[in-house]
Amino acid sequence: MSYVELKREVYEANMELQHRNLVLYTWGNVSQIDRARGVVAIKPSGVAYEKLKPEDIVIVDLDNNIIEGSMRPSSDTKTHTWLYRHFDSIGGVTHTHSTYATAWAQTQQAIPCYGTTHADYAYGEIPCTAVMSDEQIERDYEEETGAQITDCFKDKNPQEVPMVIVAGHAPFTWGKNASDSVYHAVILEEIARMAYLTRTLRQDIGPLKQEIVDKHYLRKHGKNAYYGQSK
Amino acid sequence: MSYVELKREVYEANMELQHRNLVLYTWGNVSQIDRARGVVAIKPSGVAYEKLKPEDIVIVDLDNNIIEGSMRPSSDTKTHTWLYRHFDSIGGVTHTHSTYATAWAQTQQAIPCYGTTHADYAYGEIPCTAVMSDEQIERDYEEETGAQITDCFKDKNPQEVPMVIVAGHAPFTWGKNASDSVYHAVILEEIARMAYLTRTLRQDIGPLKQEIVDKHYLRKHGKNAYYGQSK
Amino acid sequence: MSYVELKREVYEANMELQHRNLVLYTWGNVSQIDRARGVVAIKPSGVAYEKLKPEDIVIVDLDNNIIEGSMRPSSDTKTHTWLYRHFDSIGGVTHTHSTYATAWAQTQQAIPCYGTTHADYAYGEIPCTAVMSDEQIERDYEEETGAQITDCFKDKNPQEVPMVIVAGHAPFTWGKNASDSVYHAVILEEIARMAYLTRTLRQDIGPLKQEIVDKHYLRKHGKNAYYGQSK
Amino acid sequence: MSYVELKREVYEANMELQHRNLVLYTWGNVSQIDRARGVVAIKPSGVAYEKLKPEDIVIVDLDNNIIEGSMRPSSDTKTHTWLYRHFDSIGGVTHTHSTYATAWAQTQQAIPCYGTTHADYAYGEIPCTAVMSDEQIERDYEEETGAQITDCFKDKNPQEVPMVIVAGHAPFTWGKNASDSVYHAVILEEIARMAYLTRTLRQDIGPLKQEIVDKHYLRKHGKNAYYGQSK
Repeated sequence: MSYVELKREVYEANMELQHRNLVLYTWGNVSQIDRARGVVAIKPSGVAYEKLKPEDIVIVDLDNNIIEGSMRPSSDTKTHTWLYRHFDSIGGVTHTHSTYATAWAQTQQAIPCYGTTHADYAYGEIPCTAVMSDEQIERDYEEETGAQITDCFKDKNPQEVPMVIVAGHAPFTWGKNASDSVYHAVILEEIARMAYLTRTLRQDIGPLKQEIVDKHYLRKHGKNAYYGQSK
Repeated sequence: MSYVELKREVYEANMELQHRNLVLYTWGNVSQIDRARGVVAIKPSGVAYEKLKPEDIVIVDLDNNIIEGSMRPSSDTKTHTWLYRHFDSIGGVTHTHSTYATAWAQTQQAIPCYGTTHADYAYGEIPCTAVMSDEQIERDYEEETGAQITDCFKDKNPQEVPMVIVAGHAPFTWGKNASDSVYHAVILEEIARMAYLTRTLRQDIGPLKQEIVDKHYLRKHGKNAYYGQSK
Repeated sequence: MSYVELKREVYEANMELQHRNLVLYTWGNVSQIDRARGVVAIKPSGVAYEKLKPEDIVIVDLDNNIIEGSMRPSSDTKTHTWLYRHFDSIGGVTHTHSTYATAWAQTQQAIPCYGTTHADYAYGEIPCTAVMSDEQIERDYEEETGAQITDCFKDKNPQEVPMVIVAGHAPFTWGKNASDSVYHAVILEEIARMAYLTRTLRQDIGPLKQEIVDKHYLRKHGKNAYYGQSK
Repeated sequence: MSYVELKREVYEANMELQHRNLVLYTWGNVSQIDRARGVVAIKPSGVAYEKLKPEDIVIVDLDNNIIEGSMRPSSDTKTHTWLYRHFDSIGGVTHTHSTYATAWAQTQQAIPCYGTTHADYAYGEIPCTAVMSDEQIERDYEEETGAQITDCFKDKNPQEVPMVIVAGHAPFTWGKNASDSVYHAVILEEIARMAYLTRTLRQDIGPLKQEIVDKHYLRKHGKNAYYGQSK
């Protein structure tokens, strides 16, 4: 039983990150889970996108043991597996240092929902984690990054807000598979850019009124959605 | 009697939006009206530009009934038809979420006329609609978006200001046909970018004096225009 | 006696403007003077760069009379000829609406000399003209634009500062020929961008100390220059 | 004994600068030292990247005497050789006027370490030199630029912070060879861009807490590093 197809999907999702100009050098990684087999395919650590090949993708289990692959998996692997263990509904995870989303993370502030572009994809603000405590850093930095993310979602549905920014670090996004998580990474960067421009243009602007957020989110999502071609 | 030519023009205007980097994924749509036949050709909802074909363009009447086409028309169709019903002089409409124009929309402010680049194309500020009331959202969101736009033009000529930003949402532009409305969408984005830079560089700068606005607008438009090759 | 060579140089300088991404649609024009013959070659008005051909370039005399060419010359022709009449040392003029230089023009402020990148090309601030008076607008708008520029250079040498921004409008640059004036337009846009970032990052920063400006300007210009390969 | 290989490496590193969009016209130069032979290969002064050839690279000794080459070396050569003489561990130096790093230099402020993207490559803030004194300018401008840089590193390790910004001027970066110094120039520009966005979005944000800086820097550098494939 092989992982060829899973690796190819993860390879292509990683390359799409580069194609969309979201990564500089090796700054990003994408994974996908096969829940039936309990394995995650993820980019190897520190490999340039220009040199990445489908067979380089590493297969790990949910306890971060390498199942297949000769390379070391992404140094952020424990964050990915944490998310898969805690968010049952997700199938893919993307981590980037995309410019505007990272700038918001560096300000240690959530991205307010300023408009319908945002509301079309995320139901309410994009949360920002707390800054990690010294104790957490000493325990297991990458796993605790995952814990900080899930802490933000105690009262949120990760399907309704498929993205987060980690304070002082950068964004993570997720979706039904690797490709969908990259799609959300691209959208987050554009939402973050628009929010940057909005805030710097008008400091005192508040979030868009909730009724319009509801309208836009629900015209694209849920049982009464009427956007797009498929029902 | 077929709509082949009309669909091709609308297809090409939609592709021009992408070529000019004004759209991310499916965030935009262009339409054109054939007033003699009372029909509007418009992009189908949620179809990626990479996959769009001329035959996918949907033909609707001014009451939003599908006349020809197997796909669902843009979810913003009712806004387009509202504009065609209320602005007699226009032949094409474009909707985008272009970055800078959307940021201004998210600040819920009109774009002041700071310079001659703006005055060459729009006679005075680019208006921003009011934020939609709860009653309007409940009635018919897309049609009410059209109503909010026309409310801004009670004392304005839509030929003199062929563009608007919808508060908390994004811009709409129009022109004599689909291609011309895209042209105005490109120009609006650049005007919005220059205005962003101007405002953030100098908070207290006011609009350009009216006499220069008049001079520039009128050297390009109206019976005494002397810009370009045609009279 | 033909103008083939002069027209080709002006054509190529105009195309370079587009190649450097300084123009959107028809927003820019470049000219060059042949002082021996007393003629100026300039882009025709409102012609798209994609369609421009060398033979479209118009030849005018210094009184703005068309000497050769079937098209109408740029609507800014009178500003160009004014500059040639008043600045003896220049051979080419470029006008653009490049984004950052235009934003500074819209703030109606000179661009301070914040660093050596600026000092390498312009000796001191890039001046900004006054806003045009009503009387000037009524006289001859394009010629008065020239007058406003030369008013800024009463105490400045146009060879030491080969660029200006016109308040509420956009930049003009010049040089020893058409190509050199385009070179200065490209540099002005980058200087304006750096100055924008500098000012918005630190409001209270003043200009670079004069001794460093002197050093940088003089290592590239004048009899003791030691930058580059030629003496 | 020839310098063919050394020149080719320096040529390629210079071309990489352009490929990464860090230079406009001739604004940048890269060098590499061969410590065994005591020579430095560097870009010739004022030569456009489009025309640069491997054989144009100039070989100088550490006292700035030309050893091989028919062209004049970069006007910044004395800054490069100063750095090689004072930083034993470095093998390549890059100088650019990249936009965001130059803007920070123009504000005459160090770039604070706002996040892990920065901490992955530089251990703490990117220092900014003092503004040069009149005496220094009169002595030897380029050599004193080197002195200003080394003054910033009295209490810093140039291997831990492989980059600096020179007040009112622009950045210098270094690395184990020419190519590595260009890599750091690319990263500095992105760090500077993120820091610009962070600061303008939230004026009162301070640097990231030291414990996270330590964690990120040390997971990539030093004997316990666990990022990437090599040990």
